[in-house]
Amino acid sequence: MTSAMNSAERRSLTRRDEDYRRYWDPLRETMDPDARASLILERVQHQLHYVYETIPFYRRHYEAHGFHPDSVKSLDDFTRKVPVITKKMLVADQAEHPPFGSYLGVAPAELARIHGSSGTSGIPTMYGISRRDWERSAEVCRIALWSAGVRPDDIVQISFPFGLFLGGWGLLQACEVLGACAFPVGSLMPTDQQLTQLARMRVDALVATPSYAQHLGRRAAELGIDLSGSHLGVIIVAGEPGGSIPEIRKAMSEGLGGAAVVDLGAGASSEMHPFYANVGCRHAEGGVHLVQDENYTEVVGRDDPNVPIPVGESGAVVATHLWRESQPMIRFWLGDEGHLDDSPCACGRTFPRLPRGVYGRLDDMLLIRGANVYPSAIDAIIRETPGTGREYRIRVTRSGELDEMRVEVERAADAPPDRDEQLRHDLAERLRAGVMVRTPVDVVAPDTFDVQMFKARRVIDERLS
Amino acid sequence: MTSAMNSAERRSLTRRDEDYRRYWDPLRETMDPDARASLILERVQHQLHYVYETIPFYRRHYEAHGFHPDSVKSLDDFTRKVPVITKKMLVADQAEHPPFGSYLGVAPAELARIHGSSGTSGIPTMYGISRRDWERSAEVCRIALWSAGVRPDDIVQISFPFGLFLGGWGLLQACEVLGACAFPVGSLMPTDQQLTQLARMRVDALVATPSYAQHLGRRAAELGIDLSGSHLGVIIVAGEPGGSIPEIRKAMSEGLGGAAVVDLGAGASSEMHPFYANVGCRHAEGGVHLVQDENYTEVVGRDDPNVPIPVGESGAVVATHLWRESQPMIRFWLGDEGHLDDSPCACGRTFPRLPRGVYGRLDDMLLIRGANVYPSAIDAIIRETPGTGREYRIRVTRSGELDEMRVEVERAADAPPDRDEQLRHDLAERLRAGVMVRTPVDVVAPDTFDVQMFKARRVIDERLS
Repeated sequence: MTSAMNSAERRSLTRRDEDYRRYWDPLRETMDPDARASLILERVQHQLHYVYETIPFYRRHYEAHGFHPDSVKSLDDFTRKVPVITKKMLVADQAEHPPFGSYLGVAPAELARIHGSSGTSGIPTMYGISRRDWERSAEVCRIALWSAGVRPDDIVQISFPFGLFLGGWGLLQACEVLGACAFPVGSLMPTDQQLTQLARMRVDALVATPSYAQHLGRRAAELGIDLSGSHLGVIIVAGEPGGSIPEIRKAMSEGLGGAAVVDLGAGASSEMHPFYANVGCRHAEGGVHLVQDENYTEVVGRDDPNVPIPVGESGAVVATHLWRESQPMIRFWLGDEGHLDDSPCACGRTFPRLPRGVYGRLDDMLLIRGANVYPSAIDAIIRETPGTGREYRIRVTRSGELDEMRVEVERAADAPPDRDEQLRHDLAERLRAGVMVRTPVDVVAPDTFDVQMFKARRVIDERLS
Repeated sequence: MTSAMNSAERRSLTRRDEDYRRYWDPLRETMDPDARASLILERVQHQLHYVYETIPFYRRHYEAHGFHPDSVKSLDDFTRKVPVITKKMLVADQAEHPPFGSYLGVAPAELARIHGSSGTSGIPTMYGISRRDWERSAEVCRIALWSAGVRPDDIVQISFPFGLFLGGWGLLQACEVLGACAFPVGSLMPTDQQLTQLARMRVDALVATPSYAQHLGRRAAELGIDLSGSHLGVIIVAGEPGGSIPEIRKAMSEGLGGAAVVDLGAGASSEMHPFYANVGCRHAEGGVHLVQDENYTEVVGRDDPNVPIPVGESGAVVATHLWRESQPMIRFWLGDEGHLDDSPCACGRTFPRLPRGVYGRLDDMLLIRGANVYPSAIDAIIRETPGTGREYRIRVTRSGELDEMRVEVERAADAPPDRDEQLRHDLAERLRAGVMVRTPVDVVAPDTFDVQMFKARRVIDERLS
């Protein structure tokens, strides 16, 4: 029972954490990396044979590439020999073999859950999760929540939408198996009420997207709600990149009373869910541990996914389900970029990490006059520039052969318009230094733009139309 | 695996049902009623002592009424001596002792879930459910789904909102413990997509409110979607009264390809959830079995809840949690009206039934010139009158001392306006005969009113303003 503690005392639980077991599964979380590598190789070989022999989608794909599972004798073979699969291939296969594609792997009667992508543009991609997979994923989700600092006494407010979208469901079942109290308010509850309930129900942990956590913080400031005396000890973010970017982490923490921020979302996608195997901890300042013996994550060449990229260097992220039987992803091209770090973390876990999470979706990456520009990098720069408001848009156009990128940013609600010229100059300077592309800035009035809460889409790329 | 069957074959499962166990829990479902009564008395006495000794809200209430648990020696004593509690009392107690009131019964750290009323007008009523209660309720929810005909091979589309509202969550966990596949689309998915998915995913069972199930059926007709060849074998309704009214049942079934309709909602309320103890079956034409050894339901005097009403006669419905420890409801005044039937059901279950479910909320009951008028009765009459459209409103006014009730009804989309006079006359006649109050009718154009999907609120009582 922690209900008599305020957030300052609550946050001092970093000390009291020692009273709890530090790890949910010490054997697994602190395993010698070489021993883990052997286990991973064994599972990789198992999965390759399973999908080759059982799943038509993979059989066709591998045969078309002249690949046979027997040729994988090492993890290096795995990287160099196994062709990746992409979202585009999955979508095409589902169109041809509705509703689950030819990669379901189990009989429909064995499914525990059906979910899907938001499908805003057309038919959603459908996700079928077998009972064994659903139960197994609860275990790794529990490791994730435990690593984030959630304990059985805690109340966890989950502000993810509950419906077709898979993101919130895995974390909900993690609460259940961990024994924490779930308060699954979903996305139907208005923001002001979410804030009221956060304080009123003495919520210990908030689960939200980075966008929505920032939105809650800004709204709290507008309403004069100070959560620094509340129970809220940790903000757990997932569903979008951004949770490992220092500026965004700072904005979320400051907006919500100084709570710790733990990223569970970096490098995940609905195809890999509900296996939350990218796990932040309270000791790392951002970044995620990769539970490599659950989902094996590789960093590979942006242009050639069969080329391994050394630890410390940036590349494309590819992920593999080592245990999943239903719709298993084997070398799935996530479309994210990141780099690995295998140095020890203060928490003692021996998993490698993505120390900055993922920088952004490669799919969302903008190519501006030949330079790679990540909207998430622009987001971070805007957030740390004084005088900027809640929303902004990135507008990309083409004049002749030349790409033009502009940023339109709202001024802060409490900033006087006569500082606009200064803000315009400041932000343009920071953008030039940060993203290496000259980016003119327009300052507009507060509330010019709709607030983006989920899957923040703030880029208007007019070159595409 | 039933994926190769169409709905006609699927529905013939009433025969194949015999291959399954007919009951989930034969001992409990076919118990001799006298033996069950002994068990109920034992639990009633246990709960009375528990709440008296442990829960301040009940202690105060019982002391104020001079009631002591020791005085209950029989179920008749229970009805005649124990003061009821009302929603109003719970709301007042939560205002005084936020957030859960003084009737939580367990420490907050023992809670598995927090939910709440929609709270559209102000602060929601908060529901705290302990881990033991949450797990126990899964068992009775499973009995309910099994009784509705859901089996482990089935896919169950749940079109309830998932958030603060408790209704859908109990049925979701019932799917989990039953081993059926849950497709929890929630209320975020647009209606047209809900229909597409129903067919595309080969859904066997749909869970929705009666209002929404009717809305889906009407929309299917508009879109020309014929579900009679689909897998959909059963529509499970809850969350509102109406699922036991023949006209509404007929509309739902016909709208959705002829599927069976099973009512799980009649006489339930969020205070009694997630214990779904009012359980329709596929053998009863409407009505619900009362799982009396879980939630004990009594029919009592409308004006005096300590007067028992004989089987077969109509009265107010009062319910008691026999096992719940967190926020247990002991003689909770549901505000619904119904009557009991203890004759044998074709399914063989020995529970008494509410053969017509509940007729409507007593709170919602209109008193028109001294007559009791239930909006649900008016709803049924409108639905069975040819030429009526999708929506209507009931408008009540007072002129001088006299109450006036009018119905404004949309004409059917395919009805010519020159038939309005005939419709006006027909419907007024039927209303006069059915609700015993002269009710003028206005016919308006299709789409005049917003569609009400949840907790249909179609009464405009201008006497209150």
